[in-house]
Amino acid sequence: MFFRLNLEYDGTDFSGWQIQAGGERTVQGCLQEALEAVSGGVVRVTGAGRTDAGVHAEGQVAAASLERDFEPETLRRALNAHLPPDVVVREAASCPGDFDPRRHAWGKVYRYRVWNARERSPLRARRSAFVPAPLSLESMAEGAAALVGERDFACFQAAGSGITDTVRDLRRLDVMGLPGAEIAFEAEGSGFLRHMVRNLVGTLLEVGKGKRSADSMGALLASRDRRLAGPTAPARGLTLVRVLYPPGDPPGSRKDSSAGAGFSSKSPC
Amino acid sequence: MFFRLNLEYDGTDFSGWQIQAGGERTVQGCLQEALEAVSGGVVRVTGAGRTDAGVHAEGQVAAASLERDFEPETLRRALNAHLPPDVVVREAASCPGDFDPRRHAWGKVYRYRVWNARERSPLRARRSAFVPAPLSLESMAEGAAALVGERDFACFQAAGSGITDTVRDLRRLDVMGLPGAEIAFEAEGSGFLRHMVRNLVGTLLEVGKGKRSADSMGALLASRDRRLAGPTAPARGLTLVRVLYPPGDPPGSRKDSSAGAGFSSKSPC
Repeated sequence: MFFRLNLEYDGTDFSGWQIQAGGERTVQGCLQEALEAVSGGVVRVTGAGRTDAGVHAEGQVAAASLERDFEPETLRRALNAHLPPDVVVREAASCPGDFDPRRHAWGKVYRYRVWNARERSPLRARRSAFVPAPLSLESMAEGAAALVGERDFACFQAAGSGITDTVRDLRRLDVMGLPGAEIAFEAEGSGFLRHMVRNLVGTLLEVGKGKRSADSMGALLASRDRRLAGPTAPARGLTLVRVLYPPGDPPGSRKDSSAGAGFSSKSPC
Repeated sequence: MFFRLNLEYDGTDFSGWQIQAGGERTVQGCLQEALEAVSGGVVRVTGAGRTDAGVHAEGQVAAASLERDFEPETLRRALNAHLPPDVVVREAASCPGDFDPRRHAWGKVYRYRVWNARERSPLRARRSAFVPAPLSLESMAEGAAALVGERDFACFQAAGSGITDTVRDLRRLDVMGLPGAEIAFEAEGSGFLRHMVRNLVGTLLEVGKGKRSADSMGALLASRDRRLAGPTAPARGLTLVRVLYPPGDPPGSRKDSSAGAGFSSKSPC
């Protein structure tokens, strides 16, 4: 039986989404372990986005196939009783067997939070990057607008990534001033390269500080050179807010994923 | 030299504000240690509110007397370099030697957050209580309104407290529905008895669930019986938002505090 799960997690104490050979504590690993405990069999689970260590999610989407059938609400409750406090299944639903949360996604929405004040904020430290320097919201919004569109984002891809097709459709990149010295960047796109949101934010923060101009974004994109973009903003500020699917959750062509491999039996969950 | 400090902290990993004989990790202890490191002498520090273990603060106020003089901004930066990540000095200012943050306070504002959804929220878990049962905002607001005023709050005082004058002026008790299934209670009063806010919230949550009626609050106050009020809501939902002082920070009569005693030399900060 096939299930689609909607997940929230606090990424602070996870080594990211994806199961790793070393048995690190990962969201995928904890979820797989809970699924196996509940279903009593070996389970494979795949996710829509491979969030890095420290990155949070309000709406990660995962797919799991179980040998037993469950009423989705029963499955949700049973999984949450097994999951640790920093991850929860918000929704569970039956889905077609060929549902692939990553390949069928039409897009993703990420939010990046910055605490822009003289002093760090202990109550916001887990979910925001701290930037004490004054920032111009106007310049950052201008720079962000110049990055929106279907473009080659090679210069914003993590150095060493193997991906060669670096064109993505960045549909929206909003810069918002929130109450209490908080700033949020919200990015919606067809997909994102590794570290792309954090590199976009790191570059826009330099624009906000006046270290580079908003109208230099075009030349930066054209350079395709990672070394010319800004630093990678810290993981703690980033949240995967939502994964977007076309209406009706179309099945599409199934590709059997092997992302569940490498799970260590020594559980850090 | 005398300083008034405005503090923010995440109370999760503290055994409350007040220094304890057992050397537990407390906010007062960490602050005293930072002050001693910066000033090179023995320091006494007092606070406006003795927040319990797990309770947070956005605006705790403390007073410290140092043997050396400091420019307040210099002191703030030096203290923050010594303080652990979960506590920060937001403001530092010179103040009269007889400033007593607790006795001179005109009032305090607390906020209590509840996550009222089917499932717990990992991203809100450190700062909210989780209440899965449906809650009537309207009934809770009605119950809250019946508690406002200068009244005897004996029934909301922690059992075993030695305080006999249990009359306080509860100036405001607002119940607010926030976006995303969050509910906030905001209480402003002349002062609060031990556990009073958490007991008020625990009782109003029973009203919200329909377990007791909003118009039973008068009789409950009249009973002066702690056993008749609701359970103490969890510490994690509570934040000391602000301490209020009359305009001009009047000195008032100084009472030499001994709250700094009992500091263990073995630091858990």
